[in-house]
Amino acid sequence: MNLKDIGEFGFIKRITPNSVNNQKNVVRAIGDDAAVFAIGKNECVILTTDLLVERVHFIKDAMTGYQLGYKSLAVNLSDIAAMGAIPQHAFVSIGIPKETQIEYLDQIYRGMKELAKQYNVNILGGDTTSSKVDLIINVAVTGVAKKDRILYRNTAQAGDCIFCTGFLGDSRAGLDFILKSEQPSKDYEKLLVAAHCEPRPHIEEGLFLAKSGAVHSCIDVSDGLSSDLMHIAEESNVGFMLDEEALPVSSYLLQYCNERGYSARDYALAGGEDYVLVCTANPVKERKLADDFYKTFHRPLYKIGTITKEKEYLMRTRDKTLVNIKPKGWDHFA
Amino acid sequence: MNLKDIGEFGFIKRITPNSVNNQKNVVRAIGDDAAVFAIGKNECVILTTDLLVERVHFIKDAMTGYQLGYKSLAVNLSDIAAMGAIPQHAFVSIGIPKETQIEYLDQIYRGMKELAKQYNVNILGGDTTSSKVDLIINVAVTGVAKKDRILYRNTAQAGDCIFCTGFLGDSRAGLDFILKSEQPSKDYEKLLVAAHCEPRPHIEEGLFLAKSGAVHSCIDVSDGLSSDLMHIAEESNVGFMLDEEALPVSSYLLQYCNERGYSARDYALAGGEDYVLVCTANPVKERKLADDFYKTFHRPLYKIGTITKEKEYLMRTRDKTLVNIKPKGWDHFA
Repeated sequence: MNLKDIGEFGFIKRITPNSVNNQKNVVRAIGDDAAVFAIGKNECVILTTDLLVERVHFIKDAMTGYQLGYKSLAVNLSDIAAMGAIPQHAFVSIGIPKETQIEYLDQIYRGMKELAKQYNVNILGGDTTSSKVDLIINVAVTGVAKKDRILYRNTAQAGDCIFCTGFLGDSRAGLDFILKSEQPSKDYEKLLVAAHCEPRPHIEEGLFLAKSGAVHSCIDVSDGLSSDLMHIAEESNVGFMLDEEALPVSSYLLQYCNERGYSARDYALAGGEDYVLVCTANPVKERKLADDFYKTFHRPLYKIGTITKEKEYLMRTRDKTLVNIKPKGWDHFA
Repeated sequence: MNLKDIGEFGFIKRITPNSVNNQKNVVRAIGDDAAVFAIGKNECVILTTDLLVERVHFIKDAMTGYQLGYKSLAVNLSDIAAMGAIPQHAFVSIGIPKETQIEYLDQIYRGMKELAKQYNVNILGGDTTSSKVDLIINVAVTGVAKKDRILYRNTAQAGDCIFCTGFLGDSRAGLDFILKSEQPSKDYEKLLVAAHCEPRPHIEEGLFLAKSGAVHSCIDVSDGLSSDLMHIAEESNVGFMLDEEALPVSSYLLQYCNERGYSARDYALAGGEDYVLVCTANPVKERKLADDFYKTFHRPLYKIGTITKEKEYLMRTRDKTLVNIKPKGWDHFA
């Protein structure tokens, strides 16, 4: 049997059984943005890891070394953010083709270290090895959080409001330029490419949501809004109703789509690699949560829909019709 | 500048500066078998990570999927063992070429899970992605230990006895068969190949050494005895004197070398991937340490030399002459 037949998520389901031998300090195993284990009574370590492979996740010529380093750490910090935890330490495994220039590697580490510094994170270890063809970067990041403050995917409740901490779709539009080997020339085009190459992990936003006491579940948008929201829905045994009109898209993305006749909605729904957070929150506390978010970050927490009891994935379009949402995000083996 | 010019350890030195931004709970950063950070007062998390790349660390046809999975976890457990810690959780990132058969991947996870079960370790997370050409496996393992019980590389003291927890060189002899695409036929040949493909991590031995109160420093033999002992010596600012006659070699390795006219000493000194532990211990407690080890494990803790004040790397040969030891272990960029 071939991997394509079961897909990435089928494969994960296949390898999950019998992976926990000792429940003792396990708080959350395979199945969330990060795993969680307890040290002592209430202190938890959150651990996430992401593997980036050349020609799969990045094309060397389309990204500077700095951006590659920055992004390889950013995607992990985003997972820690989605758990509502404080990131602390990064561990970088790198597999390097022999002919690689050191100056390029210096740039990678410069990108990683500048982002690490910004969030007070350490690069505490790793592994250095050679690779035959492709550059390989695996980053693992640990964070800490109190046990009762951690945000999960599988705890959304029917009636929850769905919120989003930032714009959707910019990153995918930026990727368009890279895939077409097209140089961005206008300012807004450059900003879209930057959204793809140097995504800002929503660490402070994650901590805010965790502390709010209003948030029931959270995930970061890596595969694409529709896919990631389906992870929340499936694992929480609920459905959702998105509101097309409410999907937050930047003026850059609108301009990009308008000039080309593309649908900004499609970019927002299925783009992926946005690395903003999507959370679901108690509707009673909705107003206060959004107000406090605005006071703290000086920009809105976007309400984009509702969690429903019925396990359907729906969107109310601008003309008030209901459409079924299908997962359009990334599956590595599809 | 090319990587070959500075080598693996030169590269690590190059990327280390400015990697720690927040010393707060850092106990040990880059430079040991694993990194250590504190949670609370005396509890520490030990974290190690190893990247295995096809055609660099393993050849698919020369190893079963089971062995590949087993070994990819074993090498990490060995690092945790070298710190004197209890391994708890493993995180597996895997990059899979699209045409890979699921049955082969099942085998990899079976190998990992059986070893994990043996040591009560969980596979708690990871990342699953595709890869263009080579199979890639990165495993990160966390362990726990009390702060004052952890064993490091940089704390050997002049006068220490050097000990080794098992045979040296078997793994390299096993690798010979793989590199020559030669099927092992005799029983002893099969055992050598098994030493290479399914090394037993010396977890209990590491915990024993950490608890003994006699051990000053420890490392696992991955690069090769001479290289790994040099890591201890360099970082502890001391030298060593090995005793050739005392190097523990198995009867299998002796038979292998005798039949072929090879030097078992060279295999023991520079072979690598033995995944036994080498430690240095207080000479006053030497006798008791060795006795207790024997009582616990029913095999000897081999005394193989002495740590010296003079920063020289020497070996007393069988005919009582002194020779200089040069690092002959593995450098990924040499």
